[in-house]
Amino acid sequence: MAKINENYLKLQAGYLFPEIGRRVNKFIESNPDSKVIRMGIGDVTRPLVPSVIKAFHEGVDEMASIGSFRGYGPEQGYEFLREAVAKNEYQDNGIDIPADDIFISDGSKCDTGNIQEIFGNDNKVAICDPVYPVYADTTVMAGKTGGYDSGYYKGIIYMPCTKENGFIPELPEETPDLIFLCYPNNPTGAVATVEELKKWVDYAHNNKSIILYDAAYEAFITEEGIPHSIYEIDGAKEVAIEFRSFSKTAGFTGTRCAFTVVPSELKAFDSAGNAHAVKPFWNRRQTTKLNGVSYPVQKAAAAIYTEQGKKEVAEVIGYYLENARIMKESLTEAGYEAFGGVNAPYIWVETKDGMSSWDFFDKVLKEANVVGTPGSGFGPAGEGYFRFSAFAGRESTIEAMERVRKLK
Amino acid sequence: MAKINENYLKLQAGYLFPEIGRRVNKFIESNPDSKVIRMGIGDVTRPLVPSVIKAFHEGVDEMASIGSFRGYGPEQGYEFLREAVAKNEYQDNGIDIPADDIFISDGSKCDTGNIQEIFGNDNKVAICDPVYPVYADTTVMAGKTGGYDSGYYKGIIYMPCTKENGFIPELPEETPDLIFLCYPNNPTGAVATVEELKKWVDYAHNNKSIILYDAAYEAFITEEGIPHSIYEIDGAKEVAIEFRSFSKTAGFTGTRCAFTVVPSELKAFDSAGNAHAVKPFWNRRQTTKLNGVSYPVQKAAAAIYTEQGKKEVAEVIGYYLENARIMKESLTEAGYEAFGGVNAPYIWVETKDGMSSWDFFDKVLKEANVVGTPGSGFGPAGEGYFRFSAFAGRESTIEAMERVRKLK
Repeated sequence: MAKINENYLKLQAGYLFPEIGRRVNKFIESNPDSKVIRMGIGDVTRPLVPSVIKAFHEGVDEMASIGSFRGYGPEQGYEFLREAVAKNEYQDNGIDIPADDIFISDGSKCDTGNIQEIFGNDNKVAICDPVYPVYADTTVMAGKTGGYDSGYYKGIIYMPCTKENGFIPELPEETPDLIFLCYPNNPTGAVATVEELKKWVDYAHNNKSIILYDAAYEAFITEEGIPHSIYEIDGAKEVAIEFRSFSKTAGFTGTRCAFTVVPSELKAFDSAGNAHAVKPFWNRRQTTKLNGVSYPVQKAAAAIYTEQGKKEVAEVIGYYLENARIMKESLTEAGYEAFGGVNAPYIWVETKDGMSSWDFFDKVLKEANVVGTPGSGFGPAGEGYFRFSAFAGRESTIEAMERVRKLK
Repeated sequence: MAKINENYLKLQAGYLFPEIGRRVNKFIESNPDSKVIRMGIGDVTRPLVPSVIKAFHEGVDEMASIGSFRGYGPEQGYEFLREAVAKNEYQDNGIDIPADDIFISDGSKCDTGNIQEIFGNDNKVAICDPVYPVYADTTVMAGKTGGYDSGYYKGIIYMPCTKENGFIPELPEETPDLIFLCYPNNPTGAVATVEELKKWVDYAHNNKSIILYDAAYEAFITEEGIPHSIYEIDGAKEVAIEFRSFSKTAGFTGTRCAFTVVPSELKAFDSAGNAHAVKPFWNRRQTTKLNGVSYPVQKAAAAIYTEQGKKEVAEVIGYYLENARIMKESLTEAGYEAFGGVNAPYIWVETKDGMSSWDFFDKVLKEANVVGTPGSGFGPAGEGYFRFSAFAGRESTIEAMERVRKLK
């Protein structure tokens, strides 16, 4: 008799974004003439930049001729891309990460979920609350938790991030084995300073824990001194895996390319207490369950690191950050307490009069025809908050803010 | 303390194909002037066909403009591709599979591995021996087996496929919950008749088992009456998941696109014996851990189903099948007992004088400079066999066969 994975039965409702999609579609069906502005799912809207498009076409053309056709590529990604990443994202910034520690994939969503597989289910997982829902959901699916109870999965260590602590969690009372951190943070837009990250790296060293560091939004950091990578902290290579993505950096949400850094120095332990390098485990996972990323996509991704590519990508990021500035200003003027938006493409606002996140979602959708993301969808401590994304067009952004300002 | 997934420690050596790559690279380093012909990894060599290239470019161009740019797509794949698949692969052949049961992914390797996640680890898994190594490896990684012992993982039900049974397994003595079947078979090239598949479908019904049917090579079937899909068998929708790929059908090994069919009718059970539809589980897995396949890639894949695309793809398949015909003839003339190659791009030969598969691999590599795949890499019952793939160019194929014929 085929048995299902009963851990899935613990999962609550749908994954957040499909649920938003369902409500929005229902609204549009009933209101076909409404001009809905989407600031919900955090999806980019600017096209791929010219350098990327050019390289993408070249990659496709190579697939058209026998001499240049590429079949199966290396599961870890092509050397040309791994090397470009290592050089531009790390070595040029004084961080000694070799290309061999870079694993190219089709998305950070995949990697932050799949990484669970190489760690035993006896690991205690800590996550920020609120945070990107994939960490908790995949922890549940893997079987590392108990059931659901009043907003929380038993066995997960939740670390509340509220305006009281500046959206930076305290070290947890119970010691976690795996610690998901996400900076710049999705959804709050908060960033961690060197001192704060150092605190976590030291903590991981002391407890032999591993930090799973999601830096998908690092390209949006504008303030000097804020770390773009956890490896800027001494000793981080022994205790941290870093996830990065081209999705938000270069508009690859529909093109699909990302990378994960698993340093050779990183160790985890078996039940007898013996240390094992983690990298061969991830390598085994990827070589067995993945066949690499589409060649033309990798070729397109590498174009981000040309001089021209860097310039073009920076312009797009600047565009979104100007949206964020406008939004934060408007929302603040409209009387909302607004956070983020300076080093991240997200504005995190507190609803007024203690309105619930989903009630605010429905209100903003129905009355302003604007889609945002209910804060409670990111965890119980997100209740009473709401996320606006800065990825819309400029005109839409301005119009959306005008509509939200008029809300009664 | 971060704990590794100890199931990985049960895995033997590297995954087969990286191991082959390692040996071949070592040989080439020592013999830089040798002209090595690769018939090992089963990778295609013909370029993408013109219709696919054209659509691929169009997809890239759409990503260059605001009006046509696509961000996150549906995790299950775009409707245009799901519908093209449902119509052309199923409905036009009289099989009632709706587009909604089709899940687009970046590869069958991923899907046949990832499918493990939605089934509990208390499932008993049956696999053919020999077979594509991913089924066994991912079963081990998931924690559904015991340790390794003399060629076998404890807890897996191995179903030997030898020349004595025509490479078609008997129904196993112990009852499995999940049954991996692969037809046309990789590596033996064997196919299953309607009667044989019906036997398995009935067996799965009787035991409430689920068949995981890998039909990645169905496009190579030339003989009339051989089923291209398990859903040609009455009642299969209640007991089978089917995996299909564009990799071998249309040269997508480096482009990455595949699909998996999870019929709405398919059920599995919880520990209390309650039936659950399987499809929502796979949907939850995919929406939580995947962000869909690159849009231009999906656009390229859909071009296979245009009139012109079908013609072009059929020509390429015909090219490989002619290679296979030449190879089978040559190898037979050279005194090898050769199987497959008629409905599959693989020739499965018995080594001479009981030579081991890896010894034959090294001999063929060193003396003929031809790379094949050792049969024992596909399972213990593959020992003494060797797989040649028909995916090389015509000239290389002819030359490789001449070299192999001269082997002493």
